Order: sequence, then C-alpha cells, then structure tokens
Amino acid sequence: MSGFTHFDAEGKARMVDVSDKAETERSATAKGRILMQPETVALIRAGGVKKGDVLSVARLAGIMGAKRTPDLIPLCHPLALSSVKVDLTLDEGNNAVEITATCKLVGRTGVEMEALTAVSIAALTVYDMCKAADRGMTITDIRLTHKSGGKSGTFEAA
Amino acid sequence: MSGFTHFDAEGKARMVDVSDKAETERSATAKGRILMQPETVALIRAGGVKKGDVLSVARLAGIMGAKRTPDLIPLCHPLALSSVKVDLTLDEGNNAVEITATCKLVGRTGVEMEALTAVSIAALTVYDMCKAADRGMTITDIRLTHKSGGKSGTFEAA
Amino acid sequence: MSGFTHFDAEGKARMVDVSDKAETERSATAKGRILMQPETVALIRAGGVKKGDVLSVARLAGIMGAKRTPDLIPLCHPLALSSVKVDLTLDEGNNAVEITATCKLVGRTGVEMEALTAVSIAALTVYDMCKAADRGMTITDIRLTHKSGGKSGTFEAA
Amino acid sequence: MSGFTHFDAEGKARMVDVSDKAETERSATAKGRILMQPETVALIRAGGVKKGDVLSVARLAGIMGAKRTPDLIPLCHPLALSSVKVDLTLDEGNNAVEITATCKLVGRTGVEMEALTAVSIAALTVYDMCKAADRGMTITDIRLTHKSGGKSGTFEAA
Amino acid sequence: MSGFTHFDAEGKARMVDVSDKAETERSATAKGRILMQPETVALIRAGGVKKGDVLSVARLAGIMGAKRTPDLIPLCHPLALSSVKVDLTLDEGNNAVEITATCKLVGRTGVEMEALTAVSIAALTVYDMCKAADRGMTITDIRLTHKSGGKSGTFEAA
Amino acid sequence: MSGFTHFDAEGKARMVDVSDKAETERSATAKGRILMQPETVALIRAGGVKKGDVLSVARLAGIMGAKRTPDLIPLCHPLALSSVKVDLTLDEGNNAVEITATCKLVGRTGVEMEALTAVSIAALTVYDMCKAADRGMTITDIRLTHKSGGKSGTFEAA
Repeated sequence: MSGFTHFDAEGKARMVDVSDKAETERSATAKGRILMQPETVALIRAGGVKKGDVLSVARLAGIMGAKRTPDLIPLCHPLALSSVKVDLTLDEGNNAVEITATCKLVGRTGVEMEALTAVSIAALTVYDMCKAADRGMTITDIRLTHKSGGKSGTFEAA
Repeated sequence: MSGFTHFDAEGKARMVDVSDKAETERSATAKGRILMQPETVALIRAGGVKKGDVLSVARLAGIMGAKRTPDLIPLCHPLALSSVKVDLTLDEGNNAVEITATCKLVGRTGVEMEALTAVSIAALTVYDMCKAADRGMTITDIRLTHKSGGKSGTFEAA
Repeated sequence: MSGFTHFDAEGKARMVDVSDKAETERSATAKGRILMQPETVALIRAGGVKKGDVLSVARLAGIMGAKRTPDLIPLCHPLALSSVKVDLTLDEGNNAVEITATCKLVGRTGVEMEALTAVSIAALTVYDMCKAADRGMTITDIRLTHKSGGKSGTFEAA
Repeated sequence: MSGFTHFDAEGKARMVDVSDKAETERSATAKGRILMQPETVALIRAGGVKKGDVLSVARLAGIMGAKRTPDLIPLCHPLALSSVKVDLTLDEGNNAVEITATCKLVGRTGVEMEALTAVSIAALTVYDMCKAADRGMTITDIRLTHKSGGKSGTFEAA
Repeated sequence: MSGFTHFDAEGKARMVDVSDKAETERSATAKGRILMQPETVALIRAGGVKKGDVLSVARLAGIMGAKRTPDLIPLCHPLALSSVKVDLTLDEGNNAVEITATCKLVGRTGVEMEALTAVSIAALTVYDMCKAADRGMTITDIRLTHKSGGKSGTFEAA
Repeated sequence: MSGFTHFDAEGKARMVDVSDKAETERSATAKGRILMQPETVALIRAGGVKKGDVLSVARLAGIMGAKRTPDLIPLCHPLALSSVKVDLTLDEGNNAVEITATCKLVGRTGVEMEALTAVSIAALTVYDMCKAADRGMTITDIRLTHKSGGKSGTFEAA
C-alpha cells in the first residue's frame, strides 16, 4: 500500500501533476443505493408509471453532477468527459433504489471521482424528491466497482 | 405518509413554492461514514499529525459543497446559509472516518439537503485523497439525524 | 419611456442599488416556443409516451437555469427564488413546443430575467435533445407576459 | 430523419459517448435577434456613442455564456473551446438588435449548443439592460446557421 | 487584537454562525491598482476612445466576480448583494489603473470580501486584456478602505 | 510592444482563436504577498502549529480558484489544467505571507491567468481568515514570474 499522492513531501496539498501521463481511454464505474420505507418504493414506482418520475430527475442530476466534479472535489483535475451514463433501478426486494454510473474520458487521469460524484448527486436527488414522504432514508454503499485505462491498470471490486 | 411535493398534480417536476412560508431559524444535521483498510486509517492519522491532513481538506470541501447545493440538486431553493459546520473524526475501532455536518438558515425552507450534501462532498474528498492507497473504500450510512424549525416540526433520527 | 438604469451618469455599467427597496412578493411569467419539423414533434410525442421524455429533461434544465441567472446575466442581482415552475407542451397544430416559466421571490427586485432565462435554457435543451433529428429548429418569441410586485406595478403583455 | 441520440434503447437520458470520435476542428455559427421599440433602438445607439454601451456588455455576456454551456444544458459535454466570437449590431430598419455567435473547438463533438447558448445569453443581457425602458421586447429567431467538422459534415441553414 | 473567528476552539475551520445577527444595511469599499508600462497606459487610453475598451470589460468582470465570492472564498457566506459598483480609472502620472469597488447588502454579515474580490477580478482582467503587450504588470495595494453596518462599527483605512 | 489581441480590428472583445496553435506543455508561475501586522503573523504561526491553519485553507482555495479562471476572467479559454501547486509561507522579517502558484497544461494556450488567479484567491482567503484580527492587511505585488511553452517563448521576470 502506497502513501497519498495529493500531498507533497512536506504534507502540502496539491493537484497531482499529470502532464507526463499518456492520453488513454479511461473508464470508471461506481455504484450505490438508497434504503427507504416500502411505501416510498411504492410511491416512486407509481410516479414512474403515472406521474412524476423520481428516477429520471435523479439520473439527470447525476449526469450533471459528474460534470461539476472538479468544482466540488478540491484536488480533482478539470476533465473533458467523453461519456456519462447513470442508471437507477428500484430494488423492491430490498426496499432500495440502486444507482450505477459510468464515466469515460480520453485523457491523462482517471474518472473514478466523476463516477462516484454522479452516484452521490443522484442519491441526494432521490432523497430530496422523496423527503416529504420519508425523512429516514439512508444513502449507503457508494463504492468504485470498475476502473480501466491508465498506468495503474484495471480495478474490479471484489 | 404523504406523497411527493416536488411534482404537481400532473406529475411535472417543480421547485416547491415557499413564498408564503414564514422566515424562521432552521437547522439540520446529517451524518455519514467511510469504511477503509486499517492501513488507510493509519495513514490519515499519521498525516494529520505530521504532514498533509486529509480531514482538514475534506472539511473545507464539505463546507464549500453545502454552498453549491442549489447548483447540484435540481429542485432545491437557492439559500443564504447562515452557518455551516463539518466535522470529521477517525473511528479506529471501526476502520472508518465519521462525518457530521450541521447547516443553519433564517429562511423559508429547510436545510436538510445542504447538510446531506456537505457530508457527501466531504466523504468523496476523503475518497479522492486516499484512493492512491485504497481503492476499495465505501461511503455509507449518509442520513439526516436532526432537523428543526419550520412547520413540519423537529425530526430526530431513531 | 425612461433611460437605462444599468448605467450611471457617466455611462458606466453597474448593478442597480436596491438596498432601499421594500421586500415584497414578486412574480414574473415568460413564454417562448421552438418551431420544428412535424416529424420532430411526432418523435417528441412518441418519446414522452414510450421512451425518453424530451420535455421532462428540458423542464428540469429550465428550473436549474433560472437559479443560474445571476451567474449568466452580468448585472442581475443574486436572488433567493421562492418558486420556479416551467411548463412545456406540444403544439402540434403549429409544429412547436410551447414553454412557460413562472418565478417568484419575496425580495427587493423583480424576477423577469429569471423567468426569461428559464424559458431560454429549456428551449436550448429541447434543441440539444432533438438536434440529431432536426438541425433547422428555431427558438422564437421569448417574451415577458406578466410581472407583478414592486414599485413599477403589474405588467401584462398586450 | 433519425431518432434521438440522447436516449438509450430504454428511453433513459445519457450523455452520448464520443470516446471513439476523432479529434477534428469543429465550428458552429448561430444567429438570433431582439425586436424592440424604435425608441429603445435609439437609446442603445445613443449609449454606444456617448455613454453606456449595451451591445458591449451583451457581447461579453455571450462569450462567457458559451463557456457555461455544459453547466446549463444537461447532456452537453464539457469542452475546451478554442474560439468564441459574438457580434451584435443594430438593425434600425427592423427595430432590432441582430446577434451572431461563432464557436470553435478541436475536439470530439460539435459546438452548436455553445453558439446557440452564446446568442441566447447575449439576447437576455440586451433585454436586462433595456428592460427599464421597454418591457415588451421579444427575443426571436435563434437558430443554427452553419456547422462544420465532424462526421455529419457541413450544415448550412437554407 | 482578537483571534480568528473562522476556527473553532479545536482549530477546525467553519463558516461563522451569523444566525443571531441582525439584518442591517452593510457597505464595504475596496481599492487596488495595476502598475504597467507607459506604453500600456497609452494603449488602454487609445482603446477606450477608439476601439476596444479594457476598462469596461474589467468593470463587468469585477461586478460578476463579486457575485462569485462565496464560490471562491471557502468560508464566506452566500449573500444576496443589493448593489455592486466597480470603477476603473487611468492614472497616467503613476502609470497605473486605479480600481475601486463598493458592495452593499441588507443582511447578517459584512461584504468586505465581495468588494475585495471585485477589485481582484477586475485587476486580473486588466492583466489578461493587456498581457500580449506587457507581461510585467503588477497588481498591487488591494485593501479595504471603508466598511459600515454591523456590530463592529465603521472602519476607515488610515 | 504589440497591441491587444483580445479586441478585433473594430475594437470588439473576443476570445482569441487558438485552434491553429500547437498543443505543447505550458507552465506559468505567479507570486504575490499580503502585508499585515506583526501580531497577525504571530497568530497565523500559532494556528499552524496548534490550531486552525490559515495557510492550508488558503492553499486549497488557491488551487480551486485556478480551476475557476475561465468562469471569472471573461476572455480566458476553458482549460484542462494538468497541475496546480500553491505555496504560502510566512515571511516574519517583512510581516507578510508570501504566495507562489505554478500551473501546467498540455494545450494550445498559456496558463498565466490561472497562476495569477490562484495567487489572488489564496491571498483573498488569507484576508478573509484573518480579517477579524486585522482589517488593514494589503494584498500586493501580484505578478507573473515565469512562463514557458508556446510560441512567445520563455518569460522570466527581471
């Protein structure tokens, strides 16, 4: 296990210098979920069929959130993302909304933070849309599940 | 359990009209945690004492993230927050960083989303700072723990 | 007809000083439309029923765009909007999408620009979503239709 | 006429994946106009000569607006624009301000939305600067007039 | 001389809680200057009369910069500024551009940072506009000259 | 000494067209300083050792500020910075904080403005953190000290 790259030898925070890295195609996928009351799951399902669709609003917020990553995470590089996909599905067996986000870039640094930010903002948006009905929802299990491209090679979550 | 306020009768998304709500002092507290390898916890502790301090960077990112909430969450109102506090502590027994954020406002709508966003952005920043050492970290258990002010009264998580 | 308030006596641009204005409830409504091929109207209708809903995405973009008005229009005041509603409907007789936006504020200055910006961003989003099918669409007839609150009184478009 | 590329096969909104597109020089030009009272045209002309120059402020807002396109239009890619030009001229015969914007990029996707956004924000800024004198102005005829570069070839408005 | 209010008793950064402060009218004025070659001063003067006006562009950038203060300065409160004025004048005797910015607010916290940010962004914009002619310009002497409103009373620079 | 590139032949502001420039590695370094009371220097030193660290907060704000340059400086190109470093040190002999920022890019245009903006935002943040103790601080001597890469060659401040 190596140390932290976002600090220099004196412990000062910095944006890591990627000038010498090759431009390669990079991809990252993150996942997360929101746990809620069964009644809230039912309301989301009913809305998606008949009325307002919580999951569509959250999907869009997640895509837009990925683009704001360098504004939000202090040491992230500004990136010209070439693809963002966010998917939300109802998991009624577990009273949850499952979220998956995949980001791609042809560039010099990875896009894990963009994928994780997309999942987080989508989850927060689900919370916002449903909070009048259920304040006790929990956002949980946000993690990187896949990463490819770049010198550190491919990562797959266990 | 009521329905969703962010859709009108036809299911169209909207920013809820709060023009007629009273300006009252409102407060919200949210919590969350990041699970990591014991070696990562040790690296963070070592940095906070001697070198770069992951928790200070994440605290600042959380405070700034709270201010970006209306840019990120589609139907949130723009708000003039009167206070933001973000606290991160190492929980070595559980190999985790614990995050707590409290936001306040004198205004017409609650600040739950601001507190939850602060926790989420702080957690993502911890992930970013430590990911060179530990890609398998998980952000988990982000939830509202307290809310006061406004017509819906005080909420305390069970 | 008076002169321009956004310049001082020497012709220098400024944000108008509203410190002495009363906090009143203010509302503004703007409208606009996008003209397109009949086939494009048909594709939007088909999507709203079965697949991707162009109008829902544009509605959300319009709401979020209203919040960005002070970042975009140089001399607009930053405002804590209390309500934003954006509505898009298909007008098949005229091969058009009709857009209406209403913004509200309890504050010291009007919200015309917020309503006009919401309509503009929603229209641009319809263009973006449909441009692979129809590059010749035209955004047209964006105008203020109603304004109330504040010293200048109520305005209704002829 | 093809379908919409911003939805996948299930109708879910996405940012189109351009990872495999070639980096080519791309250019787009958009136009639009604002209709106003003859007295408002006269005030703008007088200001440009003697006092505050509405058209210079709007030109700058248009250039800055082009850069904000990915923040505003949900499914637009973040882009490193290589050129933005915005031109506004008084058309006294038609009681109008004419706006033209041209954006360029060496990259993987077109810049139509950037040019259209520049025109829209410039037009909104003209409205804002002149609204104290003329609330009835109309922003109209915003359309793409030229596009070149990329696989879909050159587009010229009829 | 008191300590720093932006840290709590444990030295953790925070946004100061202003919930209990009174809403009063607050004003702040800041000044600064940019030193340059005599030829650069002459070019700016020539442009302002005949061609592109550096000072008008910088004035607008300063006004817009004041509005971005809470996005830029980590612990600043988001504020609904009621007035921003930025003035730039050529000081040919000293080969300098002089900048003054005044911000106002009816609110719970002071607007010094908004005035100082407006001056800084205006100065950076002058540098950007003129740097092809003169890379050795220096931005200097940015300071608060006046502050009124709020509990700490009126401040005037010596 | 040449003229200004940010205006066209008619004096209209524009973002300079860099489409034809080569992608090269570019670097820029800027410096600046804040003058303060000796007691304020002592408070900053004490905080860095025991409590809240003003210089760490300002370093982070400077890094984040560099990324916001195209949002702030009207005619700057949006850039994918590959490196940002900001350093702040106490100069007790001169009662000052010294700031140095270096930005890098592999791209078509220089990064002077990013380095100068990083220094400016870091300086403003020091002011904000210390203003409760010392309102009379002055931000001074912000200038470019080094620039390399690109057609205009290397610049070193005298």
